[in-house]
Amino acid sequence: MRNGRTIRFRSPVLIEATAATGGVKECEGPLGKYFDYCLKDDLLGQKSHELAEIKMHIGTIKRLLNKTKLKISDIDFCFAGDLMDEIEGASLTMRDFDVGFFGLYNACSTFAEALILGATMLDAGHASRVICSTSSHFCTAERQYRFPLEYGSQRPPLAQWTVTGSGATMLNKRFGKVAVVSATVGRVVDYGVTDTNDMGAAMAPAARDTLLNHLANTDSRPEDYDLIATGDLGEAGSHLMRLLMREEGIELGERYVDCGALIFNRVAQDVGQGGSGAACSATVFNGYLHRKMTEGMYRRVLLIPTGALLSKTSALQGESIPGIAHAVCFERVE
Amino acid sequence: MRNGRTIRFRSPVLIEATAATGGVKECEGPLGKYFDYCLKDDLLGQKSHELAEIKMHIGTIKRLLNKTKLKISDIDFCFAGDLMDEIEGASLTMRDFDVGFFGLYNACSTFAEALILGATMLDAGHASRVICSTSSHFCTAERQYRFPLEYGSQRPPLAQWTVTGSGATMLNKRFGKVAVVSATVGRVVDYGVTDTNDMGAAMAPAARDTLLNHLANTDSRPEDYDLIATGDLGEAGSHLMRLLMREEGIELGERYVDCGALIFNRVAQDVGQGGSGAACSATVFNGYLHRKMTEGMYRRVLLIPTGALLSKTSALQGESIPGIAHAVCFERVE
Repeated sequence: MRNGRTIRFRSPVLIEATAATGGVKECEGPLGKYFDYCLKDDLLGQKSHELAEIKMHIGTIKRLLNKTKLKISDIDFCFAGDLMDEIEGASLTMRDFDVGFFGLYNACSTFAEALILGATMLDAGHASRVICSTSSHFCTAERQYRFPLEYGSQRPPLAQWTVTGSGATMLNKRFGKVAVVSATVGRVVDYGVTDTNDMGAAMAPAARDTLLNHLANTDSRPEDYDLIATGDLGEAGSHLMRLLMREEGIELGERYVDCGALIFNRVAQDVGQGGSGAACSATVFNGYLHRKMTEGMYRRVLLIPTGALLSKTSALQGESIPGIAHAVCFERVE
Repeated sequence: MRNGRTIRFRSPVLIEATAATGGVKECEGPLGKYFDYCLKDDLLGQKSHELAEIKMHIGTIKRLLNKTKLKISDIDFCFAGDLMDEIEGASLTMRDFDVGFFGLYNACSTFAEALILGATMLDAGHASRVICSTSSHFCTAERQYRFPLEYGSQRPPLAQWTVTGSGATMLNKRFGKVAVVSATVGRVVDYGVTDTNDMGAAMAPAARDTLLNHLANTDSRPEDYDLIATGDLGEAGSHLMRLLMREEGIELGERYVDCGALIFNRVAQDVGQGGSGAACSATVFNGYLHRKMTEGMYRRVLLIPTGALLSKTSALQGESIPGIAHAVCFERVE
């Protein structure tokens, strides 16, 4: 069923298992102990950071399969993406798996896009089990969107730190303690921000747009959720999100967090405004939030991964940075 | 229902309308008269070819809406992608439309990916009308994957010509003379090709893999289709495709064509092995094939858009080029 941009899944779509891999810095952060695997070296013994990110993504999917004692032949389709040009990371990751592949790109909101399309595939009855996964890597993102690390560029104050990590979710219709119950599909929102070092400001209006749409379509209020978590607005961006929602008469209060703020000790780890990247919400959800839901700490969580739809070319040509945000509502199955 | 990687849609998913835009060279080719709109200038009065491609994509969706006298508010979701880094084209196109957006990337097979996911969304009952669209532009692709045009690089003999164009399909469950009846989702196939000027060889094994899988899962033979059309293997690549299928004991014969061969007069228009790009199958299907199906020339068509999953970075790092191909089966509704 659908109301506006909000989908309510007809029968329960359940999370059978999750897997999260964190980089060295991510594992030193507050959520390090929740990740299934911590990299000892962000290069993973590869000759490039691009190959390292791919090896990490492959490893995350393999661990997800190992945890469930399943083989890739038990999976119908994979929905995956990442931040590298032409989603090279997900595309080359999928060389290692004999499975139908849907390549996705909505920047750092891609994990939510994968969950929505994976859950829809199950809801339509065209699959019995799917994997939704994303990855990002600090070094591949810096080189691609900003400068190679070797330049030693200074980081401006509003910059965020791309998460090195990968998260994967296995969805099915039979097993699991947490259900994907509804989702609101994001639209492209552009407030004219052109500073590629201020992603939070570019994405916050999209997060507001999607949250307002979700609350209206589901006739719910923030108090109806135990946690509302945006993907990677960072400290400044999530402050902006609170202000934007306040303008609408809605106080988000303490139930609102940002995955980019959760994953690092912002000041101690010197990560600017906090974490970002396609793996930010994916590692925080698959490593931390899903576990806290199964343990009963949270019953109902609204995850809103946020994406900044820029490319190096569009930025250099002076285009503004549109944002997008998809919301996914999870509920603990009693 | 699903059999292996093949989905059979439960209730008819119908094509309500199509729109295709062709560039100057494309409109001089054999299919020029079938396009809804022909560019007079491939720059469309813009200051960059990237902005030109975006304007062309926007125009194609607007024409699709005009043809059906619908507004964007009548559309639930758009499934779109293109070849620019971070699918900049589709992302910035969607700034102009107030609609839920799923950004997709499977290289030149993205149009099929969009059709499969759009049809699944309708089949699940979560939408009543969706638009599936892609674009590509010769000048943005040359600059990104090879060299800026200003360099005047020589084109090697196996090179293809990226189609400047955009195609869009409106899907629904009520109106239309052509149905999307089934689809086979591609997997990533890598035969170790590293020549970025020989895309046909990189993609042909994926096309064979998907076609064999589709025929087996649907218990059909090539003779059961009036037309089997790969997306953009080009002349050499489609010859290879015939040979690869012959190895499997299957003669494709005259019912097999390649959209990249159809769209240009290969020799007269000096396009190397023929057309390629995310708009190749999208313009040929939305401009030409859909019309020929509604007119009754073809009753049953299997479209197999093919994609080469390379990026500039992966190519420069010496990675081989994996291919992917998704098959979509269309039938005329009697």
